[in-house]
Amino acid sequence: MGATPALRRGRGRRPAEEVRAEVLAAAARLLIAEGMRAVTFERIAHAAGASKTTLYKWWPSPAALAAEAYYRESETLLSFPDTGDLHADLVAQMTAFLGLLTHGGAAGPVSELIGAAQTDRDLGETWSRVYGLPRRELARRRLRSAQRQGELPADADVDIMIDQLWGACYHRLLVLKVPLDDLDVERLVTAAIRGAGGSTRPLATS
Amino acid sequence: MGATPALRRGRGRRPAEEVRAEVLAAAARLLIAEGMRAVTFERIAHAAGASKTTLYKWWPSPAALAAEAYYRESETLLSFPDTGDLHADLVAQMTAFLGLLTHGGAAGPVSELIGAAQTDRDLGETWSRVYGLPRRELARRRLRSAQRQGELPADADVDIMIDQLWGACYHRLLVLKVPLDDLDVERLVTAAIRGAGGSTRPLATS
Repeated sequence: MGATPALRRGRGRRPAEEVRAEVLAAAARLLIAEGMRAVTFERIAHAAGASKTTLYKWWPSPAALAAEAYYRESETLLSFPDTGDLHADLVAQMTAFLGLLTHGGAAGPVSELIGAAQTDRDLGETWSRVYGLPRRELARRRLRSAQRQGELPADADVDIMIDQLWGACYHRLLVLKVPLDDLDVERLVTAAIRGAGGSTRPLATS
Repeated sequence: MGATPALRRGRGRRPAEEVRAEVLAAAARLLIAEGMRAVTFERIAHAAGASKTTLYKWWPSPAALAAEAYYRESETLLSFPDTGDLHADLVAQMTAFLGLLTHGGAAGPVSELIGAAQTDRDLGETWSRVYGLPRRELARRRLRSAQRQGELPADADVDIMIDQLWGACYHRLLVLKVPLDDLDVERLVTAAIRGAGGSTRPLATS
């Protein structure tokens, strides 16, 4: 079952889950490397050694496939550590997130994807369902864990914290369109935790 | 000079500034009422009683015109009060901003415009230059005034505050795609001011 797509082609059927995983990986690679323009069923099917018919059956559009692919591809990198130090864990996660966008080359393709989600109603619904809301849920879990551990007050509004943290990044990326490298993640995390009434390290003097 | 475009047409030239203002007003009306699809040079020229040639001369694209129109049209509504009470002034400004997006019907059209700015490089540059950065500059002035008045520490990072406040709104609008009505502006403003080390009213218990 571990053969590459090229070797497998024409040698019988792969399990659907395996094909699905390869299609998602191929779509993510194309999205990050070449942007939304490269994300077509034709090219993804070719890259994954799958049939276009299968892709049409599983996803309503190439962009919907790209949204799910980006979620899957970034899932491990963007996972939330829980070392019991909320500040350090958020800085680590957000540094990974910003690194994916900048050095990882995802800023352009992800902007395009979110951009397309604003004009295409179906894609907007899909993007929210397969990326936006699931990622918010993961962040909520980490912040609620901090509430249980006493690092955040029980009545802290975790959704507002999430909007302040990742919203800050998207604000620079999508609305201001300024470089993300200038964003001081330490200060951003400190401000969000302190704003929610949590305990933080003292602000570094810059 | 106060005649309506329909009456003026064919009765000699209006000053360029007057034409420009009417074109911007017409573009903003079309954008908010019918979305980006309605924003064409043809329809704007007709609505403003101007020639399409003039529009082509002044703006590189209908979307670039729409971005400038949205800035102009919202300038008064989104101005920053400075009563000496930063919390109240930010709540007032952000309530106006969120009201424009929700009751004012701007959420859809503005999402479309920002969405288009992610795929069209020229529009992205224009959007940032005529909307994103000028609005950030206005917010900076209000926050710096609060620093001078002692409501915010002198070393507060005003750009991070701006990302946290308006970024929170755009995060819900563009990335999560959830209703903006659920955003508790009082808490958001309190969290941003407290996060920056400023003095705030106590958090209302909900």
